[in-house]
Amino acid sequence: MNLEERLLHGDKRACARVITIMENNQKKAFEIIRNNYHKTGNAYVIGITGPPGSGKSTLTDRLTRELLNRGKKVGIIAIDPTSPFTGGAILGDRIRMNDLSLNENVFIRSMGTRGSLGGLSKAAQGAIKVLDIYGVDYIFVETVGVGQSEIDIVKAADTVLMVMVPNLGDDIQAIKAGIMEIADIFAINKSDIDGADKTQVEIEMNLDLNQGEDYRPPVLKVSARKNEGIGSLVDEIVGHREYLEETGELKKRRKRNTKMEILNLVEEELMEIIFSKMKKESSFDAIIDNVVSRKLDPYTARDNIIKLI
Amino acid sequence: MNLEERLLHGDKRACARVITIMENNQKKAFEIIRNNYHKTGNAYVIGITGPPGSGKSTLTDRLTRELLNRGKKVGIIAIDPTSPFTGGAILGDRIRMNDLSLNENVFIRSMGTRGSLGGLSKAAQGAIKVLDIYGVDYIFVETVGVGQSEIDIVKAADTVLMVMVPNLGDDIQAIKAGIMEIADIFAINKSDIDGADKTQVEIEMNLDLNQGEDYRPPVLKVSARKNEGIGSLVDEIVGHREYLEETGELKKRRKRNTKMEILNLVEEELMEIIFSKMKKESSFDAIIDNVVSRKLDPYTARDNIIKLI
Repeated sequence: MNLEERLLHGDKRACARVITIMENNQKKAFEIIRNNYHKTGNAYVIGITGPPGSGKSTLTDRLTRELLNRGKKVGIIAIDPTSPFTGGAILGDRIRMNDLSLNENVFIRSMGTRGSLGGLSKAAQGAIKVLDIYGVDYIFVETVGVGQSEIDIVKAADTVLMVMVPNLGDDIQAIKAGIMEIADIFAINKSDIDGADKTQVEIEMNLDLNQGEDYRPPVLKVSARKNEGIGSLVDEIVGHREYLEETGELKKRRKRNTKMEILNLVEEELMEIIFSKMKKESSFDAIIDNVVSRKLDPYTARDNIIKLI
Repeated sequence: MNLEERLLHGDKRACARVITIMENNQKKAFEIIRNNYHKTGNAYVIGITGPPGSGKSTLTDRLTRELLNRGKKVGIIAIDPTSPFTGGAILGDRIRMNDLSLNENVFIRSMGTRGSLGGLSKAAQGAIKVLDIYGVDYIFVETVGVGQSEIDIVKAADTVLMVMVPNLGDDIQAIKAGIMEIADIFAINKSDIDGADKTQVEIEMNLDLNQGEDYRPPVLKVSARKNEGIGSLVDEIVGHREYLEETGELKKRRKRNTKMEILNLVEEELMEIIFSKMKKESSFDAIIDNVVSRKLDPYTARDNIIKLI
């Protein structure tokens, strides 16, 4: 069997291989996705985000085990902001999941913010498709809840789960705030810590301010470490999915996400065309030199380059 | 006097007004920058970044006071990741700087990650130019050290100051790690806390791994709250500037940054052209519908759209 056939037969190694090829931006992987795109759309994508230290990885671990108990096949894409410079502290969390990764019904993949040619967002979107073809029922996409591009990745999910923790500093709260409005479900992790009730009240108060919508995100207290509240959280995820399906919102949401994805693909492709054009054009270098030496301003430079293209 | 003349005469209100106009992506502001771009390049730009809670704002405050004492005029651009949803905890830090903002030799501006038409990076770059024309000697650009777009903004500075704190959790360390390699100077803030020495050793060890370069970033222990080590930190910034100037590295760095800025401007402008084209083309909507219903894959959709353009 060739790689594509093996992927279609649920071969885990083939799945890993296709994702790697895709991360390296090689045609072969995108061909496989193209050929089988009509089979996708069955996997339900859950974005998990939250501030650093909120225990997202452990919670994803627990949610995965719960879904396994319910007879589901699960994929995990962990967007990992580590660099080669330190080798990755978040990897520590991932190692805990090792026994999960041996399970035949679980596929785990870490993706770095560097090393993915053609952008992390494209790589994450591609991996979701490969896992969908491979045949998982649920896909978790986990990222630290800060940074515009990181948030954009989570936004592209069907359901967005926002993980909070009690007693975060003001600075961290503020970052978190920037993405509160994209959450469909809130989970307060480490809820055995004092302050969980206060955090819950704060979130509910914020939601009150945002009222008027049909759907109000539930706020659950859980403890990933103690394995408490995980079943209810999965129930809420399933409930949100049903809500989206029944109201036709899922289709709308997927259309919005598809639009965004295609725009990003178009943008990236055009920039690649322009980059390779610029490399050949010595005039581009001359334009930049003129801006550096202040003979030309950057906005006129931009206009000149666009005329060149 | 008109707005442009007032800006050139160092009118603080005019400066604020031009930046607001620029944030709203109005031509007028870019015209003013175009007209006066030949006068820019005197302001020295310092990017300040670090994990949430590291006290970047307080440290910026102290550094500004030190530069004021040395007879300098200072601009501060604080990239503020708050949202209208909560109203901004980081604003709390900014309020402390209020008495600074009354100083005639200081200009402070917060910029949100939303609300800037045409992208935060473009707005930040534009504000730097306006402040340069306005006539400041130093510009601090302060952002939370997470997220690719946020990092890109800091990277565009002449000197990058990375603020660390002792005893950060593993998860936070990992995020920080992703940007360690862009730092020119490390400041360990809150260094009166136990663990500052350990953090210093860890940073130095990381730097050891990265040896071979001519310049090795210094690692300083400071306390913004206690106002300790601030003079030395300013000395290091000035020292780094001298190093860059003497070796010709400043020119190289500014050329690299200019290149990146122009590419971003070109990208943004092209996407705007494409967006407005797409809005008119009903065929674009049909393409997306086909992808949502799985009749077409997103990569073929991309290729079709590029052919349309």
